[in-house]
Amino acid sequence: MFVQQAIAILDSGVGGLTVVKEVMRQLPREKIIYFGDTARTPYGPRSSEEVLLFTQQIVEYLIQFQPKMIVIACNTATAVALEQIRAMVNVPVVGVIHPGARAAINATETGFVGVIGTEGTIRSGAYVQALREISPHIEVVSEACPKFVPLVEKGMFSDEVTWKTVKESLEHLRYKPIDCLILGCTHYPFLMEPIAEVMGPNVKLISSADETAREISTILYQYGQLAKVDDLPVHQFFCSGEPKIFQQIAQEWLREHLETAPVVWQVPNFL
Amino acid sequence: MFVQQAIAILDSGVGGLTVVKEVMRQLPREKIIYFGDTARTPYGPRSSEEVLLFTQQIVEYLIQFQPKMIVIACNTATAVALEQIRAMVNVPVVGVIHPGARAAINATETGFVGVIGTEGTIRSGAYVQALREISPHIEVVSEACPKFVPLVEKGMFSDEVTWKTVKESLEHLRYKPIDCLILGCTHYPFLMEPIAEVMGPNVKLISSADETAREISTILYQYGQLAKVDDLPVHQFFCSGEPKIFQQIAQEWLREHLETAPVVWQVPNFL
Repeated sequence: MFVQQAIAILDSGVGGLTVVKEVMRQLPREKIIYFGDTARTPYGPRSSEEVLLFTQQIVEYLIQFQPKMIVIACNTATAVALEQIRAMVNVPVVGVIHPGARAAINATETGFVGVIGTEGTIRSGAYVQALREISPHIEVVSEACPKFVPLVEKGMFSDEVTWKTVKESLEHLRYKPIDCLILGCTHYPFLMEPIAEVMGPNVKLISSADETAREISTILYQYGQLAKVDDLPVHQFFCSGEPKIFQQIAQEWLREHLETAPVVWQVPNFL
Repeated sequence: MFVQQAIAILDSGVGGLTVVKEVMRQLPREKIIYFGDTARTPYGPRSSEEVLLFTQQIVEYLIQFQPKMIVIACNTATAVALEQIRAMVNVPVVGVIHPGARAAINATETGFVGVIGTEGTIRSGAYVQALREISPHIEVVSEACPKFVPLVEKGMFSDEVTWKTVKESLEHLRYKPIDCLILGCTHYPFLMEPIAEVMGPNVKLISSADETAREISTILYQYGQLAKVDDLPVHQFFCSGEPKIFQQIAQEWLREHLETAPVVWQVPNFL
């Protein structure tokens, strides 16, 4: 029996679904196995040790499916665990920080780049490091937006309180001379509309989700691993918490790429 | 003595300098060794066998410098020789067709994509294949523009005859319902201004040069091979023909990234 090797994608919750959507759009032949750690979201305020441990546990769960690639579709986990996960598995591991950094380097004309992310991501300095490692003269302004992830996990993408929160959180950044802003958390594309409105038309928004999907394509091609199948793949979704809200968000967010409602399996007693 | 490993970039002539410029902009720490086969340009009208042979000869010349990556910065040569060159060397080999295809898949909203290139590239069907291999429902309209490369090799980027040629060559494409156009020849970004003017503001132009630089960055990062140096690298330029026009074009095109005029070495008796 032919079993198509999947791309395994993990996140602290629903945020990685923004990467999933872009993989479905840009790589429609690829099968996806997703894990959202909804029982333990958000990762942003947690210690590095805890985020590393959780990420390792999820990867151990996912490798039983023999994926051809692991995507850490969570900026907080990428900042903390990318190198360790690379050392742990035998397949390519892709994080979400360098793709956003590279897209910003490509997009910026002034060399002034903004980054928003969770406290964990911003505190780690991972974006500043990724940007400077590649391009030493880039100027970076960062801002942690700890209130965004909980709103997204509740499915509140366009409520009044969401608009107010986005406006207040980006207040400092609005007057900085940046020409692009990295959405340095995979949850943030759910809030694309209010973020774009607040930042105005002169700031290009860079979704680490879009850019990661693009780089997944690059790397699979380079390793000769792009899917060759003609049938639409059947994806699998897992989460550690109660699957109801996860399933609603997945269905709404991914509906144009799914023929039927996604089946979401809860992985009980995950720890 | 520390010798920085370079990225080796080759083309039929000056076209690959558009990739060089983007590598200098997006990866300022990377050292470049460039080879332009100006004595035998253009490659577009040549047979596949000839283009393959020329590409192999150039790669044989370049590997003496022990580069960490080979970039075939010529669409015609990528279409014909990418797989053979991959089998020939032990370092990653990057072509310019898949990067443009992936960028178009990322950029298009309607799914209608245009491609322009040399006769060789268009005849090979390599873009249609790359696009469909990844995304089966993309609609592609292709057009060979054989007059563009000779104009660029003479440095005629904005002459009256150039504008007229661009207008006539793109006449068919102007009324097609495409929302992005892949400049499927690394020479074409030299003609960005007239091409943009003729195609109008609703067609996004995708430079395979920009996108290839971005993918070079992705792949070097994935292999842990990004340059770590702080000093500005010293690049090396070689060509097979008379170096005067090549040097003028290189100097004009790359001046914002070079402190002094580029030294261009002619490789005599190349065959």
